[in-house]
Amino acid sequence: MDINKEFFPEKIFNIEFIELVKNRKSNDIKKLIEELYPVDIAHIIEELEEIDDKVYLITLPEDKDFIVEAFEELEFLNQEEIIKNIHDRKLVSLILNTMASDDRADFFASLSKDVAERLSEKLLPEEKKDLDELLQYEENTAGGIMTTEFVGLNKELTVEEAIAVLRNKYKNAETIYVEFVVDTQGSLLGILSLRDIIIAEPGTKLKDIMETNVIYVYTYVDQEEVANVFQKYNFSAVPVLDTNEKVVGIITFDDIMDVIEEEATEDMQKIGASFPLEESYFDTSVFDLVKKRLLWLCVLLLVGTVTSSIIRSYDNLLAILIPLSYFIPIITDTGGNTGTQSSTMIIRSLALGEVQLTDTFRVLRKELLIGFILGCFLAVLGFMQSLFISKIPEVSFTLGFALIFTTVSSACAGGVLPIMAKKLKLDPTVMSGPLISTIVDIGGLIIYFETAKIILKIF
Amino acid sequence: MDINKEFFPEKIFNIEFIELVKNRKSNDIKKLIEELYPVDIAHIIEELEEIDDKVYLITLPEDKDFIVEAFEELEFLNQEEIIKNIHDRKLVSLILNTMASDDRADFFASLSKDVAERLSEKLLPEEKKDLDELLQYEENTAGGIMTTEFVGLNKELTVEEAIAVLRNKYKNAETIYVEFVVDTQGSLLGILSLRDIIIAEPGTKLKDIMETNVIYVYTYVDQEEVANVFQKYNFSAVPVLDTNEKVVGIITFDDIMDVIEEEATEDMQKIGASFPLEESYFDTSVFDLVKKRLLWLCVLLLVGTVTSSIIRSYDNLLAILIPLSYFIPIITDTGGNTGTQSSTMIIRSLALGEVQLTDTFRVLRKELLIGFILGCFLAVLGFMQSLFISKIPEVSFTLGFALIFTTVSSACAGGVLPIMAKKLKLDPTVMSGPLISTIVDIGGLIIYFETAKIILKIF
Repeated sequence: MDINKEFFPEKIFNIEFIELVKNRKSNDIKKLIEELYPVDIAHIIEELEEIDDKVYLITLPEDKDFIVEAFEELEFLNQEEIIKNIHDRKLVSLILNTMASDDRADFFASLSKDVAERLSEKLLPEEKKDLDELLQYEENTAGGIMTTEFVGLNKELTVEEAIAVLRNKYKNAETIYVEFVVDTQGSLLGILSLRDIIIAEPGTKLKDIMETNVIYVYTYVDQEEVANVFQKYNFSAVPVLDTNEKVVGIITFDDIMDVIEEEATEDMQKIGASFPLEESYFDTSVFDLVKKRLLWLCVLLLVGTVTSSIIRSYDNLLAILIPLSYFIPIITDTGGNTGTQSSTMIIRSLALGEVQLTDTFRVLRKELLIGFILGCFLAVLGFMQSLFISKIPEVSFTLGFALIFTTVSSACAGGVLPIMAKKLKLDPTVMSGPLISTIVDIGGLIIYFETAKIILKIF
Repeated sequence: MDINKEFFPEKIFNIEFIELVKNRKSNDIKKLIEELYPVDIAHIIEELEEIDDKVYLITLPEDKDFIVEAFEELEFLNQEEIIKNIHDRKLVSLILNTMASDDRADFFASLSKDVAERLSEKLLPEEKKDLDELLQYEENTAGGIMTTEFVGLNKELTVEEAIAVLRNKYKNAETIYVEFVVDTQGSLLGILSLRDIIIAEPGTKLKDIMETNVIYVYTYVDQEEVANVFQKYNFSAVPVLDTNEKVVGIITFDDIMDVIEEEATEDMQKIGASFPLEESYFDTSVFDLVKKRLLWLCVLLLVGTVTSSIIRSYDNLLAILIPLSYFIPIITDTGGNTGTQSSTMIIRSLALGEVQLTDTFRVLRKELLIGFILGCFLAVLGFMQSLFISKIPEVSFTLGFALIFTTVSSACAGGVLPIMAKKLKLDPTVMSGPLISTIVDIGGLIIYFETAKIILKIF
């Protein structure tokens, strides 16, 4: 399938497909499904409106694995609706018992308590145990994203025997690219890639080719740190250990790609002065969006009270020289924009580990210089712009001088405050553009009005 | 190696390691290297200051593959400095000839023309050809990130024979998890994972187990689209075809993790009103940072001229009621913050494909409602806040009313303008917070002053 054919007219294709579903053209649909992947079917189901159509489509493929995989790819609300409406009890059991353990845990974690209990009765005892184990880990930790379907091999096996074990015992394991060599207690002795096994001579024992210098993570490690391990070492999978040093799961690169994307999305939303959304934009209700956004707007408005009070305290000055008020937004916007630039860069660099907590002084020095250079340029531009509008050189001098100060201070605040926040164990994104803008407004306006006072006396 | 031991005191460990390097404690260092991965050595080299120390450390390991891998992980400036200062000509040739083809192409692309020419003389003819081929692709396309070291197998091979071929011919291929089945012309017939090969019976022919419904990309496809394919299908590798439909390379998940991170970083920097940096924050010079930031700040300051002119046009009103000026920053900041929230969410959703170009109206309707609800809350808060500061109910009514208008219009502008930009084939990030703030300032202030005029007549 060519990505260009496949991606751009996806919408048109989906519309035609939906028509076939509505008209129950089973044979045509089955032929199309042969050309598609489970995730494609999941995407079409997400676009169907009627629950009957959804159930019809997902139960249509003859390959049950295909059904399970398509189900895994669905968003939670569709999963719940569909599982409640499939009348074939055997199929429900099959789906719940054969889903990947991490996807299953996510699904159960989102269900209401009574539905979860009712559905968990359909699980085989070992799957139930597996589920309960996974559910105890926090969502954003290694334990919360791992699957329990790892391959454990005995160190005395030869390469040939290992291949036979993989062929027979692990036909359905999804992640056989990385094998763990474990002892009978489940402790990790070493790690092997399928590549190591393939390229070794058939008679070689695993213990002679396994990598014993294994990088692993504990179940409680934050998912962002796990992602950093993958990024740094280019691993396709890492073992997850519990606090007793036993292997309990595996995390694979595809889970990590989702983590990288999810963390970046969250950081962006937080930089944009909103609490991160749990679902995609359209899947989040208006009520939830308001909730995620309102608090920050109120906080920022209240911090703005200080700004208003400052302007009020200069109202005698404004009465003498009203044109001073024309450029209040220039001062506050320029400060905000410069602060946003610095804080966005530093927040991202902190997340990527390019800037460390010990770098406060280095960042400060750099931003001081950058802010000063930017400020000089903006001062000249602001001077000309305001002279053109107000025709009062005193006001323009005032604006130019205040712009240098504002730019320097907001560049420094934007650079340093996120690092300070992280030092105080706060999320650095609280020090994003909007808050920094509001903070630097205060200094910028004071300098603006004080400069005006001095200049008015001079001229 | 435990990630917690490994990651947190990395700095301390590195400082001790650097001491060993400076004192040329070869035996101690060699012992430590056994516990480390090539990327760890690369990170230590990045922290060394003297070129002699860098060359000493990178040439120390006895395992030449380790040296090549560590070299691949270095940033360009260190690569160039080191390659120029290794006096062992054989080692230079070895590094250049055995580097992964994509890393090598990146390295040569960054070199100045004459250095690149001189170094390319050290390449074997087939490696030189490979390099020239890769260099013709644009940096951010599938061709620019692929490697040419893919495995091509004949469809008539049995599983057993295929394993033998992999063992003998592809011992050094990095990416043997995905095998391409090709004809003698190099056209793609199907795809196989190493897992498919392992779990099949030894006598099975590849043509009977290969997946013929292959998803592939062309060399010219943008890397962000390639990343979307990986995200959607959870592939570990995809084939890259040239315009003659021949397989010319492979892209693996580790390249894609870098792409996902890089694209998110670029988008964040652009949302933060800066041009994206090519290097990390500290590796970018002050001069370059000023260049990346100045243009947007100037543009925004010039757009702010309109805001200033609007305030000027109401100066008679301000002369009568100076307290109106106290709340100018409240109007502009609230508009900016609301607009930033909406635009950041929509820009990210567009990048993830959650919001489509056809969704303008859906977004508008949602933002209209959200903006109105947020506006009502903020109006009440703003009313109370301004009454407390100004003690003039007329001003507070004016502010409250204008806040509703500003919030609604900036939510809508923030939601819709990025989609419109994308429709016009512009980068949606141009419509990020700072520009939207400045645009909505205009409407917000007009409403504020016009409301004031009306209310002043009423009361």
